[in-house]
Amino acid sequence: MLVVAENVNIRNTKIGASMREHNSEPIIELAKSLKDAGANYLDINIGPGTKSGPELMKWLVTSIQEKVDIPLCLDTKNTEAIKAGLEVHKGKAIINSTDGSQEQLDILMPLAKEFNAKIIGLTLDESGIPRDANERFQIAFNIVTKATEHGISPEDLYIDPIILPVSGMQDQVNYAIESMKMFSQLSDPPPNTVVGLSNVSQSSPSELKSLLNRICLIMLICGGLSAAIMDPLDEELMATLKTYNILTNKVLYAHKYLE
Amino acid sequence: MLVVAENVNIRNTKIGASMREHNSEPIIELAKSLKDAGANYLDINIGPGTKSGPELMKWLVTSIQEKVDIPLCLDTKNTEAIKAGLEVHKGKAIINSTDGSQEQLDILMPLAKEFNAKIIGLTLDESGIPRDANERFQIAFNIVTKATEHGISPEDLYIDPIILPVSGMQDQVNYAIESMKMFSQLSDPPPNTVVGLSNVSQSSPSELKSLLNRICLIMLICGGLSAAIMDPLDEELMATLKTYNILTNKVLYAHKYLE
Repeated sequence: MLVVAENVNIRNTKIGASMREHNSEPIIELAKSLKDAGANYLDINIGPGTKSGPELMKWLVTSIQEKVDIPLCLDTKNTEAIKAGLEVHKGKAIINSTDGSQEQLDILMPLAKEFNAKIIGLTLDESGIPRDANERFQIAFNIVTKATEHGISPEDLYIDPIILPVSGMQDQVNYAIESMKMFSQLSDPPPNTVVGLSNVSQSSPSELKSLLNRICLIMLICGGLSAAIMDPLDEELMATLKTYNILTNKVLYAHKYLE
Repeated sequence: MLVVAENVNIRNTKIGASMREHNSEPIIELAKSLKDAGANYLDINIGPGTKSGPELMKWLVTSIQEKVDIPLCLDTKNTEAIKAGLEVHKGKAIINSTDGSQEQLDILMPLAKEFNAKIIGLTLDESGIPRDANERFQIAFNIVTKATEHGISPEDLYIDPIILPVSGMQDQVNYAIESMKMFSQLSDPPPNTVVGLSNVSQSSPSELKSLLNRICLIMLICGGLSAAIMDPLDEELMATLKTYNILTNKVLYAHKYLE
């Protein structure tokens, strides 16, 4: 399973300031620690990026990849910023994200094809957040269809079933997992799946967040999850993932497997 | 999911001494704390019970149920002791256990029927520990067939796919989970499933045990597990189970759901 680090995010007070000020040192330091902690990708979230998005994304991609050998997941609603990032990105980027609306699909799928990038498709569209597994499946169907039209391989497509905060929408985790199982009917091989894991514990007290994230991660992986945008600096979360890999015989057991 | 407390076990130095000395006070104190911690059943493990098994089991069942309102899981290889326990047990007992050998099935299935008890069927037989999911399935098939012959309902049957120590037999957890999915084809409704959870972390360093048990429990529940013989006094393990129940919307979310 791909670990996509959530930490390089403009909404994070400290790193957000460094991003706005083009102060690369703390960002590179963070990127190195995320890679060391087990991240396979870094999500680079510049927010809406309405004004200087393209320039900021370009600077971030270049600055990070100059010092750290890791691919990036370009995260913004600004499609111009996505494009600017793809133009300078080394290796296989992830576009984060298109939703299921025709407008976004028509812009972002061609970009994914042009730059040979992976792309995340969120199962939400003009009518908002999906209410159950069927609505997620319907939107996923549109996304997979559009990806196929554009010649994007299922291996490069990551459908996001939308994890919502359990504190407010408690029935939705079940629906997300149920929908993931349905997605496997959409193509052969099936599309990959991805979630923004920390969403599940949003609005929960801080002492519960890691526990909710950990248990939710195992439930999702057992449901077939291919990638998670998550916090690799949460040691208990990473220990959970390592233990799952031990129990499923993916990594050789040793008494010191956590070290 | 049924929580069957593993703690009343003659191999436990302290409580084992109380069992042998017929000193009921520490046992009752433990039983109360296990019920308070969330146990639905208490496993009463008297070991082989070769000599005084029937008398010890009878004393334990009577002493515990006199003071604590909880059903018991009668755990010994001594079938006379199982019978003695069933004769005095109030409510629905669990017989722990028959294996898949004809000899044991012929003795224990009639007992389960006579006393309207639940019964655990281990997927091992004369040829020893199963090597893969298919061998587990074959033995489970024999057990379910025998249970049906004796008019035991699938709801009262708990098949144990045998969880083995990950430190020594790393491929076996996968096989156990795979076999659980196969068991669902055996009857309609399918038989229940149960595991001895702590087996998975046997021989692992003590600092890893709870983590291995916790992650394995979630994996097993996602695979359809109906009951686990486990330690309800492990607070992190019980927090894991509570969190699973929250995320699957089985228990109403509250910020203080752990308390």
